[in-house]
Amino acid sequence: MSLVFLLALIHAVTSKHQSVGDPFVDPRSPCSQHGMFEDDVCRCDNCYVGATCETKSETCVVDASSGSPFFTDDYWISEVRNGNKDSTVTIAPYYHIGYGAFVGAGNCGGFAPVSGGCRNDLETEIRALHDAVGNFKHNGYTLVMGVGSTELIAASIYSLLDSSQNATVFSEEPYYNGHSGVAEFFGRNWAQSAEEAEANARTYGRNSTLEFVTSPSNPTGAMRTKQVASGTAVFDSAYFWPHFTPITADRKLSDHDVALFTLSKITGHASSRIGWAFVKNADMAARLSGYVGASGGLVRESQLRATTILASERRRGYPVLTFASERMASRWSALESVLGSSACYSLQPRGGRATDMWSGKTYAPSPAYAWIRCVSGNDCYQTMLSAGVRGRAGPKFGANKDHVRLELLMGEPDFQSMLDLLRKLQSKC
Amino acid sequence: MSLVFLLALIHAVTSKHQSVGDPFVDPRSPCSQHGMFEDDVCRCDNCYVGATCETKSETCVVDASSGSPFFTDDYWISEVRNGNKDSTVTIAPYYHIGYGAFVGAGNCGGFAPVSGGCRNDLETEIRALHDAVGNFKHNGYTLVMGVGSTELIAASIYSLLDSSQNATVFSEEPYYNGHSGVAEFFGRNWAQSAEEAEANARTYGRNSTLEFVTSPSNPTGAMRTKQVASGTAVFDSAYFWPHFTPITADRKLSDHDVALFTLSKITGHASSRIGWAFVKNADMAARLSGYVGASGGLVRESQLRATTILASERRRGYPVLTFASERMASRWSALESVLGSSACYSLQPRGGRATDMWSGKTYAPSPAYAWIRCVSGNDCYQTMLSAGVRGRAGPKFGANKDHVRLELLMGEPDFQSMLDLLRKLQSKC
Repeated sequence: MSLVFLLALIHAVTSKHQSVGDPFVDPRSPCSQHGMFEDDVCRCDNCYVGATCETKSETCVVDASSGSPFFTDDYWISEVRNGNKDSTVTIAPYYHIGYGAFVGAGNCGGFAPVSGGCRNDLETEIRALHDAVGNFKHNGYTLVMGVGSTELIAASIYSLLDSSQNATVFSEEPYYNGHSGVAEFFGRNWAQSAEEAEANARTYGRNSTLEFVTSPSNPTGAMRTKQVASGTAVFDSAYFWPHFTPITADRKLSDHDVALFTLSKITGHASSRIGWAFVKNADMAARLSGYVGASGGLVRESQLRATTILASERRRGYPVLTFASERMASRWSALESVLGSSACYSLQPRGGRATDMWSGKTYAPSPAYAWIRCVSGNDCYQTMLSAGVRGRAGPKFGANKDHVRLELLMGEPDFQSMLDLLRKLQSKC
Repeated sequence: MSLVFLLALIHAVTSKHQSVGDPFVDPRSPCSQHGMFEDDVCRCDNCYVGATCETKSETCVVDASSGSPFFTDDYWISEVRNGNKDSTVTIAPYYHIGYGAFVGAGNCGGFAPVSGGCRNDLETEIRALHDAVGNFKHNGYTLVMGVGSTELIAASIYSLLDSSQNATVFSEEPYYNGHSGVAEFFGRNWAQSAEEAEANARTYGRNSTLEFVTSPSNPTGAMRTKQVASGTAVFDSAYFWPHFTPITADRKLSDHDVALFTLSKITGHASSRIGWAFVKNADMAARLSGYVGASGGLVRESQLRATTILASERRRGYPVLTFASERMASRWSALESVLGSSACYSLQPRGGRATDMWSGKTYAPSPAYAWIRCVSGNDCYQTMLSAGVRGRAGPKFGANKDHVRLELLMGEPDFQSMLDLLRKLQSKC
């Protein structure tokens, strides 16, 4: 531990009257305001290095390749600064020795969805959130929790499809590479077109063909519809929240379809790995939770934290959604002011303005990703990387090299750094 | 919430000067000392009911059917009562927004084992624990973390075996039903004998045949050796700790074998779902972590808690192991005083005394389960259930109905209740 780091830490601790177990009032203070202090180390913003993030890097590359939702960092810091303690969890070492992941479940235990009078506090909070936002009417649906929606993607691909050689997965291009990657992991076929998938489903039955309807789309943000009428559809609804698109109606499913959601793209708590599926068909729910159970089940601590945070938000009308909506809107304004009329770099269309049911406000979608086409037809990933912005290349989504995806979910300092780099790039257009 | 419950809670809170976020000094106090208070509800001991566990049940059945390690409850309560705060975790809402499960990993992120100078604090603590106990020499082994060792059992069965129709799993009888259950979930063959498994491995190659060597055995506690020389062996080492058996030598593996461990049977934190595999072969490690990644990866909060608890234990010489050893030894003394010379109910042999390397003490094994044979040849599960003790029936482990497994890992009040019921049963022998 360097001396400068130690001094910064001592300053941060003493100046805020930090006591053991209390969170830092300003976790960026020990890191020169250019990083977050956690686990006794500074996690620096892009372009800053050093033990206390004190040095600006000369060879700066902004990482816009993932979807890590640091954009809510500032909101949660302000919660602590404003003295709201009820979204902080303290876990004694004796807390819930033994099995059983569901908070409030008492002796009900087990991996399967809790029913029959047992409490599942996280499920209650999740359903309340959907009630408030209006994006899914969950009455009559079983909720199956997973280790992030990623596990429910895996569970769908493994357990909703039959085990024949004809088992096929499809998603409209450009598709989320998390769907194609897991399909490949489980050795499933990947259909090249909706027609091919539909033909497969008609020949081999509904359980032979699974379609991921990612709506809003990752990477484009466009709303999608089911393309394979005879197959099973999993509506990946990770981005179907007011900060990404105005919610004008609830998501409607056929009786054998599934809707997936994830906490990570709502509150930002991605490493808590809280995802859920709504399923009407009892056999399909059992298959999904069978996979989750066989793969080790669910984790108690993250569910306790998610429950605590969602309950705190519910009591105050979900201010995190207001924060996230304003932040995404301002990012799109800034991005369009730089690239909106560029002759070299074409942003995807955002979609029209509409009135969101939750906020009552009228606005255009502000997708989680910029899906950029290099008008030159050049390799757009390389073009951006040369400019200091690492995106995710078009071919990963089944698109051409002239496309690249840039995430817009990073922390605010990283977003501003990226914007500066894009401005420089555009100035040479 | 009933009035009596509210009053008990107010008493508990005010009498201990409870403040927001602090753990209860005595979490059994709001529950009439017959249960644990968590998530605003009492989880009652077996045989007690009511909102504050205030009523003894007339129709009492003790649940000895799982392996939920409540036997460490009292240790962790005493930690808090003794004022040791460094095994309590406080998690601010801004803690680690975004992906990345590994505590201390900084920007290293990802699901795969962290290397190349990145810190992984939990891995460091796990390796230190093995160094102290001496049960596994981990130099040269990759550590792959999973959602409990259960996920690594699933990962082994899915990803270490090839996908042919000949893929076969074997474990010596009586075997742990967690192994056979997951093999069935993934549609693998289950070999009926070591000879059958060995023949399969010789015909179709090492990747066709997976053996679980559960040592000490669940359910018997006996030490096991590899039976299928030509296959891949996964040594399920959940019970290879000083409180279950004196550790006289480290576990040795062939280069293509795997060792599994789990936090649940060490500290009792089962719902944290912290399991790990040691693997020498790089391709096998990649396959295991590939399954974990595809299934949603790992959870940050539970790893933070596990790291905190193991570090606190390490600094004081792992007193939880001393507590657990004394408790298991006293339970076996008590059990043998009731059933040790029974003409009706035969306990498994415990194995001989040996000197444990960690404690330097000499003692006989104290297995996690009693594996009981009803000498009459009757259905032993039903016999026990009629006496008020719900075990797990012999056939689940591939044994006959004359056997039943009773767990010895429950909370102390439940263990004493079970002992009373067994004493009554034996008195009628």
